[in-house]
Amino acid sequence: MYLITPETESLIDRAIYEDLSIGDPTTDLLIPPDLQGAATFVSKAEGVLAGIDVGLAVFKRVDPALETKVLLQDGALLRPNSLIAEVSGSVASILKAERTALNFVRRLSGIATATSEYVREVQGNHVRIIDTRKTTPGLRTLEKYAIRAGGGHNHRQNLGDGILIKDNHIEALGKMGLSLGDVIRKAHDNKSHTINVEVEVENLPQVDEALAAGAEILLLDNMDLEDMATAVKMCEGRAITEASGTITLERVRAVAETGVDLISVGALTHSSPALDISLDLAT
Amino acid sequence: MYLITPETESLIDRAIYEDLSIGDPTTDLLIPPDLQGAATFVSKAEGVLAGIDVGLAVFKRVDPALETKVLLQDGALLRPNSLIAEVSGSVASILKAERTALNFVRRLSGIATATSEYVREVQGNHVRIIDTRKTTPGLRTLEKYAIRAGGGHNHRQNLGDGILIKDNHIEALGKMGLSLGDVIRKAHDNKSHTINVEVEVENLPQVDEALAAGAEILLLDNMDLEDMATAVKMCEGRAITEASGTITLERVRAVAETGVDLISVGALTHSSPALDISLDLAT
Amino acid sequence: MYLITPETESLIDRAIYEDLSIGDPTTDLLIPPDLQGAATFVSKAEGVLAGIDVGLAVFKRVDPALETKVLLQDGALLRPNSLIAEVSGSVASILKAERTALNFVRRLSGIATATSEYVREVQGNHVRIIDTRKTTPGLRTLEKYAIRAGGGHNHRQNLGDGILIKDNHIEALGKMGLSLGDVIRKAHDNKSHTINVEVEVENLPQVDEALAAGAEILLLDNMDLEDMATAVKMCEGRAITEASGTITLERVRAVAETGVDLISVGALTHSSPALDISLDLAT
Amino acid sequence: MYLITPETESLIDRAIYEDLSIGDPTTDLLIPPDLQGAATFVSKAEGVLAGIDVGLAVFKRVDPALETKVLLQDGALLRPNSLIAEVSGSVASILKAERTALNFVRRLSGIATATSEYVREVQGNHVRIIDTRKTTPGLRTLEKYAIRAGGGHNHRQNLGDGILIKDNHIEALGKMGLSLGDVIRKAHDNKSHTINVEVEVENLPQVDEALAAGAEILLLDNMDLEDMATAVKMCEGRAITEASGTITLERVRAVAETGVDLISVGALTHSSPALDISLDLAT
Amino acid sequence: MYLITPETESLIDRAIYEDLSIGDPTTDLLIPPDLQGAATFVSKAEGVLAGIDVGLAVFKRVDPALETKVLLQDGALLRPNSLIAEVSGSVASILKAERTALNFVRRLSGIATATSEYVREVQGNHVRIIDTRKTTPGLRTLEKYAIRAGGGHNHRQNLGDGILIKDNHIEALGKMGLSLGDVIRKAHDNKSHTINVEVEVENLPQVDEALAAGAEILLLDNMDLEDMATAVKMCEGRAITEASGTITLERVRAVAETGVDLISVGALTHSSPALDISLDLAT
Amino acid sequence: MYLITPETESLIDRAIYEDLSIGDPTTDLLIPPDLQGAATFVSKAEGVLAGIDVGLAVFKRVDPALETKVLLQDGALLRPNSLIAEVSGSVASILKAERTALNFVRRLSGIATATSEYVREVQGNHVRIIDTRKTTPGLRTLEKYAIRAGGGHNHRQNLGDGILIKDNHIEALGKMGLSLGDVIRKAHDNKSHTINVEVEVENLPQVDEALAAGAEILLLDNMDLEDMATAVKMCEGRAITEASGTITLERVRAVAETGVDLISVGALTHSSPALDISLDLAT
Repeated sequence: MYLITPETESLIDRAIYEDLSIGDPTTDLLIPPDLQGAATFVSKAEGVLAGIDVGLAVFKRVDPALETKVLLQDGALLRPNSLIAEVSGSVASILKAERTALNFVRRLSGIATATSEYVREVQGNHVRIIDTRKTTPGLRTLEKYAIRAGGGHNHRQNLGDGILIKDNHIEALGKMGLSLGDVIRKAHDNKSHTINVEVEVENLPQVDEALAAGAEILLLDNMDLEDMATAVKMCEGRAITEASGTITLERVRAVAETGVDLISVGALTHSSPALDISLDLAT
Repeated sequence: MYLITPETESLIDRAIYEDLSIGDPTTDLLIPPDLQGAATFVSKAEGVLAGIDVGLAVFKRVDPALETKVLLQDGALLRPNSLIAEVSGSVASILKAERTALNFVRRLSGIATATSEYVREVQGNHVRIIDTRKTTPGLRTLEKYAIRAGGGHNHRQNLGDGILIKDNHIEALGKMGLSLGDVIRKAHDNKSHTINVEVEVENLPQVDEALAAGAEILLLDNMDLEDMATAVKMCEGRAITEASGTITLERVRAVAETGVDLISVGALTHSSPALDISLDLAT
Repeated sequence: MYLITPETESLIDRAIYEDLSIGDPTTDLLIPPDLQGAATFVSKAEGVLAGIDVGLAVFKRVDPALETKVLLQDGALLRPNSLIAEVSGSVASILKAERTALNFVRRLSGIATATSEYVREVQGNHVRIIDTRKTTPGLRTLEKYAIRAGGGHNHRQNLGDGILIKDNHIEALGKMGLSLGDVIRKAHDNKSHTINVEVEVENLPQVDEALAAGAEILLLDNMDLEDMATAVKMCEGRAITEASGTITLERVRAVAETGVDLISVGALTHSSPALDISLDLAT
Repeated sequence: MYLITPETESLIDRAIYEDLSIGDPTTDLLIPPDLQGAATFVSKAEGVLAGIDVGLAVFKRVDPALETKVLLQDGALLRPNSLIAEVSGSVASILKAERTALNFVRRLSGIATATSEYVREVQGNHVRIIDTRKTTPGLRTLEKYAIRAGGGHNHRQNLGDGILIKDNHIEALGKMGLSLGDVIRKAHDNKSHTINVEVEVENLPQVDEALAAGAEILLLDNMDLEDMATAVKMCEGRAITEASGTITLERVRAVAETGVDLISVGALTHSSPALDISLDLAT
Repeated sequence: MYLITPETESLIDRAIYEDLSIGDPTTDLLIPPDLQGAATFVSKAEGVLAGIDVGLAVFKRVDPALETKVLLQDGALLRPNSLIAEVSGSVASILKAERTALNFVRRLSGIATATSEYVREVQGNHVRIIDTRKTTPGLRTLEKYAIRAGGGHNHRQNLGDGILIKDNHIEALGKMGLSLGDVIRKAHDNKSHTINVEVEVENLPQVDEALAAGAEILLLDNMDLEDMATAVKMCEGRAITEASGTITLERVRAVAETGVDLISVGALTHSSPALDISLDLAT
Repeated sequence: MYLITPETESLIDRAIYEDLSIGDPTTDLLIPPDLQGAATFVSKAEGVLAGIDVGLAVFKRVDPALETKVLLQDGALLRPNSLIAEVSGSVASILKAERTALNFVRRLSGIATATSEYVREVQGNHVRIIDTRKTTPGLRTLEKYAIRAGGGHNHRQNLGDGILIKDNHIEALGKMGLSLGDVIRKAHDNKSHTINVEVEVENLPQVDEALAAGAEILLLDNMDLEDMATAVKMCEGRAITEASGTITLERVRAVAETGVDLISVGALTHSSPALDISLDLAT
């Protein structure tokens, strides 16, 4: 995975600027510039690690002379007091970069942790937990990476890498006299060969119509479990199925047992709490 | 408040690029370019609105010909089905901007909503709920704005606008033979006149030493309620007090009743779930 | 199509800066600032128009007071002396923006024109002319748009929106003991559901192996026409086929008649000559 | 030559983002992260090399741990199978950067190659082949560098580093009652001392008038060979001459033999086909 | 001090681009690429050094292979012929970066030098020389750093890190019926706890009113020395005082002797002449 | 003149960010958002105006709803109380943009004013006052514009638009056995036809050698007036002459009377004090 891209670097720069644009007088006034030390990323809770390379890149960006060492890789299970990585060198530089680095690692690990909980919950079923496009503005690439670190998979990266016909499209086109099947066929005939057609359906007749029109993926939106199971059977071998809408950790296993191929959970990226990770300094 | 700054615009551009960099084939293949329509931001839950102007700016950036109209201002209480704002014009443009716009408004409103819950909980006490620097990389200005929309106040915007002497500083300097008081005096004598000295203290003797050395603000870190109340009395008229550490919605009222001036809650920005707001389209 | 994105605007800014960073002394010394006039984009050759909106955006960026009017839409057939668009207002502004605007429109129209020639050549066959990732650095989105304006379709927009297993991958993995089929299956089991697996094959046994392993698209690389036709028959109903390698305008019809679904032509973006379009000024 | 400027780096970043913004699943799914290898840039055709340092910079930008080695310098003659440069290290990184790197080197070498053909054609004459401002938006500096690598020289880099009075200026000012000579004198009296006045002329009386008014350079636009030769004689020792307009490889020698000092060829940058260079991977 | 931030780097890039965007033909035509040499920053006048690290960063940015060595730190006193720093390596690279590097060091040292003159003038008084927000657009962080290198202190870094109620605010609010005291109290009650309230006063009654309303800092604007001294006594122990308005080197000592805590001098950043520093090259 | 280019806009954005990145609490707390008013740029001193359009662009960038009106054009003579321009609309927006706008206008007008003083001093001589490359990092285009507003002319805009052979070049090449004449001829034979060769000379024998070798411009560096006058006569009709080095307002007339064509004054851009201009607000 190529994570520290020019795009990631520009986000790191932006984050550093937010915190350090007018300097760090606390450190400048108190810490002798030549004081050396080391600091360790330590987990304070259980979870899954994601983004440690981004966190370390923040330290290197603030002071290229800092040395960093990874002790655990992204995807590792964390327990309280797990040692994650070390950074050593100028104490002043470490203190200046600390908060920005932690803000990245804690958020991304929070997403990976939440993902891993859903993944664990559906274990044993042939199903994937996937994300949505409900990501934090500016952080999509990193957040989708965190999903994978947590054992999940990614849905569309952006609007361009898949056709997803939603209720809004269907309704707008319905007013112009097109049936669901017409809409799917229109998309199918004109789409690029690299992408597939997914369509949002709400009931079994729509499943039938979508299949007949050749949809490759069916998004089963807010269906009850029974209908979902029926829909899965109807699709068998003809289309893959995605369950979506009000998926909670409590309910996800039951949804998985309907046989769907994919369960998308928007909350993974829009509502996961940060994982409690801190930086312990030794001088 | 000057919200749509060049800095905010560059974040909006980044977010649009994440979603639309290779286009929106679903819309391009299905929606007639001249189809006109309107869409309404509708709340699906209770909460407090924040960031609607940012959301509308996304639409204008994607298509300057879209018309927008604000129905509720940031800070407004939302109930299920509250109508927040309208956007009208090209349906294709609305669909292309929808997700990016919602990602902003839902996250910021989530933060405002969480803040308002803490604020409501401490009502009647002379205390402010404040944020921390634990913000999402790249979104600090917007998230600190959302805190204010929710009735909270802001702590430091960045490392530069206040001295905050934390345990790491105290420990590092202690090894060099400086007492807590020495450290505070060192900061005080050299700091800019525009900023104040805040110091993290963990027990009452430290409170005493910090006050003697002239600290303007005391951060009472993870103190129990009794010590906190004593510390507040010791500070009366000499320094203002901030409670910090494991503040929860359940515990915040008791903390407020100790008489502290400020309660800082990192979770407001790092762990608030998004507020459920959607865009309803009418063609 | 959403063409004047923030990304396109930043390219326009870059191009304007290249030409105008230290001003235009010819115009500043000679042309009275209040001289008004109008200019017309005129085709000097036969071809297909693409990018006129980008060209006009250059004028508006240099001087927002200029008025522009589109006479022909992208995709229009051009003949010598076809009038394409008008721009009116300050003559000095028109002269400053002229070259940068033309550089966009001429290049993009050159690509659209070349594409249209291939498309015309294969008319009557059920085949699509598609592009490759061999685009000009920084112009990919615009060049892929020009392909569509010329009647072609797009292959992958970037490395992320499709699996394409090439000879380099197959060889590297072969050395590690994996057969072609193993490689395809490995990709298939782990890929995102939104993308498909395409594999480069050079002979009929590879076609067989790739089909057996479940490849959705076969890139027939430098095959002779007979093998190509056989491969197409083998794939029928199981995979779609793309012909690639040394496709020329002379040979493309014969390739199309083998029955392949897609013919990719790298030269469309990397070697198309600009179309001769000029700006005629009237004062 | 200082080629990898901040400006070039930002174009490289843009190009990398175009291709890698959402990752490279083919490589990520198939290539073991620790697989090491080497790759060689190999020419597949005859031509002149340009931009190899830019190509190698792309690899270093994607993965600073990659090692690169230049075997041939820009300006070198290439034959089929000429080995140009090597890159070694992580195979995954090499595969991710390959296309972007090649897109630079192939385009720039295409321009150098075309330039060298014109230069070879006029050998023995005291004449320079020069470029124009008809460059690809965003690539001007690199393309003008490629012209020099191919043995050509550069005309104006931008609108600011020379006065060039074209037909549009002359016509607009003519309507205001100024003769060609008036226009030249007006420019001459007010121009910066660092730049010269070039004027476009279409016939011999204009040559006369321009010389009398003190023009330092005459652009002989679309003149026939006989007039061109006469114009050259008229200018001898008083102004230098540039031939322009419909210059082809077939016609360029005859033009050179008229004695002109400069021949400008817009097609070098706007219509040169890419040179066929590939990257051969060994694992 | 963390000086070479991403923000500083982007300014360095911008400055390099201004000078080197189309190359350096003088050096390229004349200096052999492999010629090695060394150059020394030498002071030609008396003053105080500031920004040498920025100057050296320019050289490293143009050519990372250049070696640099600091001989004097920022804040050092310079005399004619003081040796400041060395840079060695490619002579061509040194020549290309020279002017841009000097432009930084000379300007910043000019500011430090002017500051040090004011500081020296008030020596013996308990007063600080401070700057204002009248800085060069784009250079605020660097210029405020130069102030400190010269022995001065900083006033507000930006509009956000302090309340400063000026005559414009007072007047506007006065028309709405608010007294000076009302305005101060309004600001005080609502301000963030991290910032203080400063208020501009022009006479002694205003001093009285501002103190009564709780202002922490009083800006004594254009007061005569006698009033200033009286104001200082009135403030003793209740607020700190800043003298402002037409402060010159001649007058600053008398102002200091009134007992004010701060004297702000806008001219330090908006009108200091550059310090004469040059680069001596040895090949 | 095309002044508000994308490059200028990015500098304006940078300057706004410096001042407003964390908001303007003074204004936000005190000024009612709907309070309307107007403000006038007023000169407080004698001088020449430059950059008023940049200043007004700052206001429009902070709040596009503000109305602006130019009363005096750049280049206008200012006296105390001259009214320059007006801005009206939201008082809060005006106050937020005020300082940034003034920082531009005051600096640029300072440069124009200083230039005009030199120009006035040499009136009656056929000589131009020109600038150097000693400009403020990031502001070159604007500062060179201000020079012209003050009646001066521009020397090289950047390293690329002229050959200027300085002592450093001559010395380095001298060690390799090249005479001054050799160096000039080497440059002459290889330079682009669009630029001229200027050479720095320090005595009359060098003048002789430079003329013989064909230099188009001679920079007479730190010559005494007598030698300068002799050098001018030697150059008559063969090269133009530039006087440089320790030019002061006192000495410039005498220098001009030697007959030189150009006098370059680095201090115009690196050491001019800002012009006192303020913004008077009426509510």
